[in-house]
Amino acid sequence: MHTYQHEVKYYECDRMGITHHSNYVRIMEEARVDYLDQLGYGFDRIEAEGVVSPVISIECNYKSPTTFKDVIEVKVTISQFTEAKFEFSYEMRLGDRVVCLGKSRHCFSENGRVVAISKRLPELYKAICAEYEASPLCR
Amino acid sequence: MHTYQHEVKYYECDRMGITHHSNYVRIMEEARVDYLDQLGYGFDRIEAEGVVSPVISIECNYKSPTTFKDVIEVKVTISQFTEAKFEFSYEMRLGDRVVCLGKSRHCFSENGRVVAISKRLPELYKAICAEYEASPLCR
Amino acid sequence: MHTYQHEVKYYECDRMGITHHSNYVRIMEEARVDYLDQLGYGFDRIEAEGVVSPVISIECNYKSPTTFKDVIEVKVTISQFTEAKFEFSYEMRLGDRVVCLGKSRHCFSENGRVVAISKRLPELYKAICAEYEASPLCR
Amino acid sequence: MHTYQHEVKYYECDRMGITHHSNYVRIMEEARVDYLDQLGYGFDRIEAEGVVSPVISIECNYKSPTTFKDVIEVKVTISQFTEAKFEFSYEMRLGDRVVCLGKSRHCFSENGRVVAISKRLPELYKAICAEYEASPLCR
Repeated sequence: MHTYQHEVKYYECDRMGITHHSNYVRIMEEARVDYLDQLGYGFDRIEAEGVVSPVISIECNYKSPTTFKDVIEVKVTISQFTEAKFEFSYEMRLGDRVVCLGKSRHCFSENGRVVAISKRLPELYKAICAEYEASPLCR
Repeated sequence: MHTYQHEVKYYECDRMGITHHSNYVRIMEEARVDYLDQLGYGFDRIEAEGVVSPVISIECNYKSPTTFKDVIEVKVTISQFTEAKFEFSYEMRLGDRVVCLGKSRHCFSENGRVVAISKRLPELYKAICAEYEASPLCR
Repeated sequence: MHTYQHEVKYYECDRMGITHHSNYVRIMEEARVDYLDQLGYGFDRIEAEGVVSPVISIECNYKSPTTFKDVIEVKVTISQFTEAKFEFSYEMRLGDRVVCLGKSRHCFSENGRVVAISKRLPELYKAICAEYEASPLCR
Repeated sequence: MHTYQHEVKYYECDRMGITHHSNYVRIMEEARVDYLDQLGYGFDRIEAEGVVSPVISIECNYKSPTTFKDVIEVKVTISQFTEAKFEFSYEMRLGDRVVCLGKSRHCFSENGRVVAISKRLPELYKAICAEYEASPLCR
């Protein structure tokens, strides 16, 4: 898996001259979209199946500010995985410097009800398993 | 019709310390939503009828900067009106000072086709006419 | 302290028709600004003293979606408080329903260095103490 | 000059499933930043000289909607140029299809006063002239 790169835009910086903290949540989404594309199972494909993947929770630990034109490199890993939920971790760096560490938790739902990933989206399930071999769910 | 008020948020200001110019387009949308609500025909009611109201064009003339916590007062008027299109004008002020003058043009469409307002949404048509008496369409 | 109200804007909703999850981080900032204003020590006053208050971390637990025109009521409390850091908790509701629970952690810094709140901003320190009586720092 | 590319993000799409119209104003800024970088005179260099380049006006004519993952190609040209002001035009395309036509007008100012580009930023002036040979100002 390659890392995702986000170049900070002028309009993403605030009065302090730094990337506004809310934008890291959006950068995490961009990196997640790219990660699922690399797995061969992008948002559009998931949505085309009538399934949505709501965000259950997010967190960001800001380590160092970034600013206009900085290219943030984002490494995404799957850090938890069960039938009902999964968690992505995000390491965001500028070169050697970690600028933000994030997490997001998700489920899959259809018509407002949480679905079991292995049954409803078996191919995605296998692809995630291949990335997260340590999961007790994966054989 | 009362004016609409928008208090500038911290995250709406940029590195120059002023409201980023793209946000005025969003403030215009907020004011338009409020205006249509006052007409008794809000976005949600229009959407509930299966009609959408796409933006055809927008323009903003920036007269004076605003910043965090400024309360921008927006006066909306209907400045053009035909069966197919209508135009809103927006005067945005801080007290006596005009900060931005905007315009937006819209149509109504259903299943991807432009609809005649007087036929498809006759009540809204009448309400707009009452506001825009000079229109040649209005009796 | 009164609660803060945020009415969800059209442009804050995403393709799923719900408030995009990143916007809750911005709503938390709006509520925090309002809270500090109520304490008599707004962002502008803090910045006027040459002090900034960076965000160290945030988290959001999404409980229930909201959408266009929903009025989210935000109750802010100070949930941790030391000389160097403090934490706000945010309970966001639509009527009886909790829609999101958030936290944000902050410090104060001047010229890139963390400052002791009680020394650098004693009035704010007292105001926060009055709100957070349980802190071991407060007499 | 190469064109600029913007891939539409999930969070840039609205309840209608299309790129929210306000985001084209941000895409225009991104393309302008890239254009000035190609001229060898980026925003950061201009700001480092103590000069800012405020936006005087913008306009967008929306021709066709775009959505999540679309890659919008933006061609920037300088369409007006005087000592005090200049105008960029933006042609945004998805393949053969024009999706939006935009314009933005700008000046340069220092300490709140408009400055003559040829005197204050002679190198940038020459670089713009080279791109806009028809200007009466350029020899």
